[in-house]
Amino acid sequence: MIDPDSSVPLYAQVEAVLAASIADGTYAPGSQLPNEESLLERFGVSRTTLHKTVQNLIKRGLIEIRRGKGTFVTQPRITQELTELSGFVEDMQALGRHPTAQLLDKRVMPASDLAARRLGLMAGTLVVRIQRVRLADGVPLSFDETWLPKEIGEKVIGNDLDTEPIFSLLEEKYDTPLLEAEYRLEATCADPTVAHALGIERGSPILLIERTSYSAGHRPVDYEKLHYRGDQIQFVTRLARRAKRA
Amino acid sequence: MIDPDSSVPLYAQVEAVLAASIADGTYAPGSQLPNEESLLERFGVSRTTLHKTVQNLIKRGLIEIRRGKGTFVTQPRITQELTELSGFVEDMQALGRHPTAQLLDKRVMPASDLAARRLGLMAGTLVVRIQRVRLADGVPLSFDETWLPKEIGEKVIGNDLDTEPIFSLLEEKYDTPLLEAEYRLEATCADPTVAHALGIERGSPILLIERTSYSAGHRPVDYEKLHYRGDQIQFVTRLARRAKRA
Repeated sequence: MIDPDSSVPLYAQVEAVLAASIADGTYAPGSQLPNEESLLERFGVSRTTLHKTVQNLIKRGLIEIRRGKGTFVTQPRITQELTELSGFVEDMQALGRHPTAQLLDKRVMPASDLAARRLGLMAGTLVVRIQRVRLADGVPLSFDETWLPKEIGEKVIGNDLDTEPIFSLLEEKYDTPLLEAEYRLEATCADPTVAHALGIERGSPILLIERTSYSAGHRPVDYEKLHYRGDQIQFVTRLARRAKRA
Repeated sequence: MIDPDSSVPLYAQVEAVLAASIADGTYAPGSQLPNEESLLERFGVSRTTLHKTVQNLIKRGLIEIRRGKGTFVTQPRITQELTELSGFVEDMQALGRHPTAQLLDKRVMPASDLAARRLGLMAGTLVVRIQRVRLADGVPLSFDETWLPKEIGEKVIGNDLDTEPIFSLLEEKYDTPLLEAEYRLEATCADPTVAHALGIERGSPILLIERTSYSAGHRPVDYEKLHYRGDQIQFVTRLARRAKRA
């Protein structure tokens, strides 16, 4: 299958074979590639050649290295609707993915300028901050920071936040209906905290959503920074043409 | 102003002075900071100390280094509405910014699999591709790639695309009203082409919008990849709470 006399370089021949096996599902999304030794044996190329192949497949987004685990076929990005206010558990269930959460931290602390402004409070007012990793089918997808006004936040953190979605607690247990939210979307890089929480390299692309959710009377009750892995998710919406200005 | 006997490190004292000058507008957004020599003279600190200050101010997003030009106070992100289908010129005018464009390339070429699928064509069908840099107040903000079906695309590229917005040409000159669009948003990294077009480092964060615009009869007529500088823009929308599922 690999022809050393071809004008096509060996690394490119191996790359074409592996890319075809990924495209036809022989190596399924999320599955682990055979290890380096078995690929070397199968293709009869040098380690240097195989490394060049692997680097190219990574650049093409077809495979990824998970530290300490091996080389895996990339999962296609999750395509998530951006049309209604919805929580992570609802989003993943709508996509047929299994959502879980890991609580990293919960504490009462003074609000930053921005968090205070979004929640309609004075800077420095005590608020509750909750930090969680949200997973889809066991893969860390988002590092979420949630700020809540102190009174309701202290109730919320009395629950098991590995299992109880905050939206459900607010709406069903604490009589705080969520009616709408403002979403702000940016592209940024993973800082050390975000990279560590998501198990990715520093500087990896992050789709950051700042979300402020409002209850009745346009009262802000939940401010979040949702740091999504950029390589894992895409948001989709449909917009009508703007009305012509006179 | 700088106290060598203070328990606050010198770099942090200089950092506080410069951050305050940025906050109070002494150093306005977009303006150039005084050069290194004059800052060294003014604060009487070592070059190493000043470098630490500068690195911290960069990390805080308050200043940025423009290659070959110097150190500048960061412009706050443009906050753009994501609520209606609108073109770059319309968006910038709504924000009070001056939009310009630089045509990089225009050609007839076979459609990629993705471009073909979005335009409802067979892969490999000839289409017109246009590459432009879009600028706001003279700063490159977005690298735009536009694919048009060949027939209308060949008309469009007969115009001066440095000055004529494609949306205006389609709607006003070629009788192709745009009614709605699908937007797909991702965070990614600048590849060499995008980095070069925008004058930024490879790997810088990019907010990538894939936009397919439709004319009457849900006919796709314009497929674009809009590579926005991640550090320059934020998209904002408001969403109502999703309807309860039964």
